Amino acid sequence: MQVEAKLQEMALELPAPMKVPPGFTIPFSWTRVRGNHVYISGHVPLESDGTYSGPSGKVPSEVSLEEAQQLARKVALAMLNSLKRELGDLDRVTAWLMINGMVNANPGYPQTTLVINGFSELILELYGPEIGQHARTAVGMAALPFNSPVIVAAEAEFESLV
Amino acid sequence: MQVEAKLQEMALELPAPMKVPPGFTIPFSWTRVRGNHVYISGHVPLESDGTYSGPSGKVPSEVSLEEAQQLARKVALAMLNSLKRELGDLDRVTAWLMINGMVNANPGYPQTTLVINGFSELILELYGPEIGQHARTAVGMAALPFNSPVIVAAEAEFESLV
Amino acid sequence: MQVEAKLQEMALELPAPMKVPPGFTIPFSWTRVRGNHVYISGHVPLESDGTYSGPSGKVPSEVSLEEAQQLARKVALAMLNSLKRELGDLDRVTAWLMINGMVNANPGYPQTTLVINGFSELILELYGPEIGQHARTAVGMAALPFNSPVIVAAEAEFESLV
Repeated sequence: MQVEAKLQEMALELPAPMKVPPGFTIPFSWTRVRGNHVYISGHVPLESDGTYSGPSGKVPSEVSLEEAQQLARKVALAMLNSLKRELGDLDRVTAWLMINGMVNANPGYPQTTLVINGFSELILELYGPEIGQHARTAVGMAALPFNSPVIVAAEAEFESLV
Repeated sequence: MQVEAKLQEMALELPAPMKVPPGFTIPFSWTRVRGNHVYISGHVPLESDGTYSGPSGKVPSEVSLEEAQQLARKVALAMLNSLKRELGDLDRVTAWLMINGMVNANPGYPQTTLVINGFSELILELYGPEIGQHARTAVGMAALPFNSPVIVAAEAEFESLV
Repeated sequence: MQVEAKLQEMALELPAPMKVPPGFTIPFSWTRVRGNHVYISGHVPLESDGTYSGPSGKVPSEVSLEEAQQLARKVALAMLNSLKRELGDLDRVTAWLMINGMVNANPGYPQTTLVINGFSELILELYGPEIGQHARTAVGMAALPFNSPVIVAAEAEFESLV
């Protein structure tokens, strides 16, 4: 349980699974496993009880770069919780592959890279450079679900027990 | 031919392949197969003759949520037609993996989730929860080809005959 | 070295690896290899010395369609340089799979398809229809890193030496 031990060391806690707000239905799965790949849906930042974590809105006019970086970190924790529920043990991840970082950005905002670094740096800190390294996009969207400032989706490889 | 039988039951018809409008060239493929994965290009909603199906424009200022959901459903039918042409039989799909739903959204529109549900729910209805379940993104874009309100791309697994 | 020979024939040169501008850190990898797949990060257009290549801004209000198509071609060259550094030889690519083309577009701009054709056509010219064919998205973003008019990410298959 190396990743969980590091989370504890860093005093980071995984949130509960998302409590979907009223008026929304979620027909998709947070994770989809096939072979030794796991496809991971876009995740939003969550409070520890699984409720959506604000502030909401555009980066940087409504949410600052620093706030957005913290939210990107919270997105990583929400995603790790989904992975833990799917795989049982976070140490089963053998390689992060692709990370698709999306920022609810004002038109032309040039620093989406820095926002998503909040996500990438936590993954690298937890998994180390060999497993944690990943290809990435970090781009600015016109709109995101719940008006979340940050959403990240990903694909990873894990040690299949089959 | 279970999926085709369900389409008939639901009185849904697959459109003809897209008739690309004058002024556009399409150097890419609607589907790309390798091993037992099929990578599926972004599809727009089509009329039954394969012409691009309006209305066009931004959700929700020019196209309502309800219209956009219907268009997302049409996108699914266009994609299924491409898959049928590639695989011969829609029942060869063994697992939907990742669905990338994109909405031509007004800035900050918080309901892109609901738009793309039109796509996801049809796939789940046709394929059932085991094959049809998928990871997903459902996000808002500044612009989409032909000013389409909805485009969806995907990755799926199929039973290779090799 | 067929692809490199064609590049020479066409008088095209691969740029140096990106020189990341001050104020940015790049915790991700330009390419991530696992099995026989290579996941390729979003690439921006580069000058031959690896500095970011302008003009920057929105398509078409600040950067014309024709300029954006040329930049998409430059993005392909930057990506090929990353691939060459990862794989040693560009001929090791056995199949382009998915290309995710992103345009820094004005809201509702309907011609993102044509911008990304600059990328797709060069890949097809260099690799031919069998290896070069690919599924694709070509969509409009609210914002892109460095305010680049075009960014492309991709997934490809290569001949593993393992």
